[in-house]
Amino acid sequence: MNDTATPASQRTQVRRAAKRASYEEETLHAIIDDAYMCHIAFNDGHGVHCIPTASWREGGHLYIHGSNGSRMVKRLLDSDCCVTISHLDGLVMARSAFNHSMNYRSAVIYGRFEIVEDETAKRASMETFMEKLAAGRQADVRPGNDKEYAATTVLRISLDEASCKVRSGGPNDDEEDMAWPAWAGVLPFARTRLEPVPHEECTVTPPGYVRRWLRF
Amino acid sequence: MNDTATPASQRTQVRRAAKRASYEEETLHAIIDDAYMCHIAFNDGHGVHCIPTASWREGGHLYIHGSNGSRMVKRLLDSDCCVTISHLDGLVMARSAFNHSMNYRSAVIYGRFEIVEDETAKRASMETFMEKLAAGRQADVRPGNDKEYAATTVLRISLDEASCKVRSGGPNDDEEDMAWPAWAGVLPFARTRLEPVPHEECTVTPPGYVRRWLRF
Repeated sequence: MNDTATPASQRTQVRRAAKRASYEEETLHAIIDDAYMCHIAFNDGHGVHCIPTASWREGGHLYIHGSNGSRMVKRLLDSDCCVTISHLDGLVMARSAFNHSMNYRSAVIYGRFEIVEDETAKRASMETFMEKLAAGRQADVRPGNDKEYAATTVLRISLDEASCKVRSGGPNDDEEDMAWPAWAGVLPFARTRLEPVPHEECTVTPPGYVRRWLRF
Repeated sequence: MNDTATPASQRTQVRRAAKRASYEEETLHAIIDDAYMCHIAFNDGHGVHCIPTASWREGGHLYIHGSNGSRMVKRLLDSDCCVTISHLDGLVMARSAFNHSMNYRSAVIYGRFEIVEDETAKRASMETFMEKLAAGRQADVRPGNDKEYAATTVLRISLDEASCKVRSGGPNDDEEDMAWPAWAGVLPFARTRLEPVPHEECTVTPPGYVRRWLRF
């Protein structure tokens, strides 16, 4: 795996709990691909903002989209930002209060977004996003028209400067606490799927990606 | 509910999809209380960072904790930040590609963190956090000692300057797309709980908050 690792930059060097850090491409891609959204920190000249937005990955870039007029789209082109994706996997119950922790997977990306200017590439990236949401759905829906695409900006940021942090497994108690009579272990979370809810006016037979929704 | 609403400040005025905005205290508290972590955007003088961290609420404040030496703890005392909590509730499938959306609940808080200096208040707030993680567990674990508390900083930020954004319900298609033969509706997500995983050396009978973990 070392051939796909990115060296840590000054910004991505994990300082806290550095043993949990990873700079492996495979880890980074898996964390991004398991998410439907990211949080973006950016500065607008007056102060800092942290905005959640839908995201997806193609190759070595993370993509987002927005309305042309959005404040965030404008600001992201002006200066560097920080994009973070996090998954909470469980609560780690140690024998001592102090050693409690959480299991998580997080990725932090630094850099500057750029507009996907090429119209073919822009439309292809929106189709990639649709494919992520529901594989095969692009062929079913009324495609975007020129006016809709013209109102939408697609942005991407390189994953070249990124780091991950992952904690998994059980508690790490101090040796002298091991006999303390408290239950110890992990209370795990999962993101699961609930029964699809058809629109009240929908008379279309559920396609495969709806019928299989609960099976993933 | 209007008596508990916070007026929008320049920073919390929702600009995009303003019809989804809420400044109600009840909405804000529910979004925070349903989360175990937040994302904090802050500036360190070189650039902006977006760091996920555990969080909890007491009254009108959001709390976090960290090691005394952490860069983030230092920076959060120096300047204003933005704290965001988001829950993704579903993918909204419209008949047109353009009208696809997501159901979510998010809260954005602006302000400055302060240290909880009072030792009694600090320890009480850590116990509140434990109570959130597993009600009743504080009595079971080996309590924090002076050295552990001395190594930990508890910070809080007022919820006075905050806004929420919530989308729920089905797709909003354009009238002219209503006859398009694509399935329309919501593919919902839920954060669920998996079977507790006891530590391999744990011989303690699972307490109520472990036995009931799957029932919430």
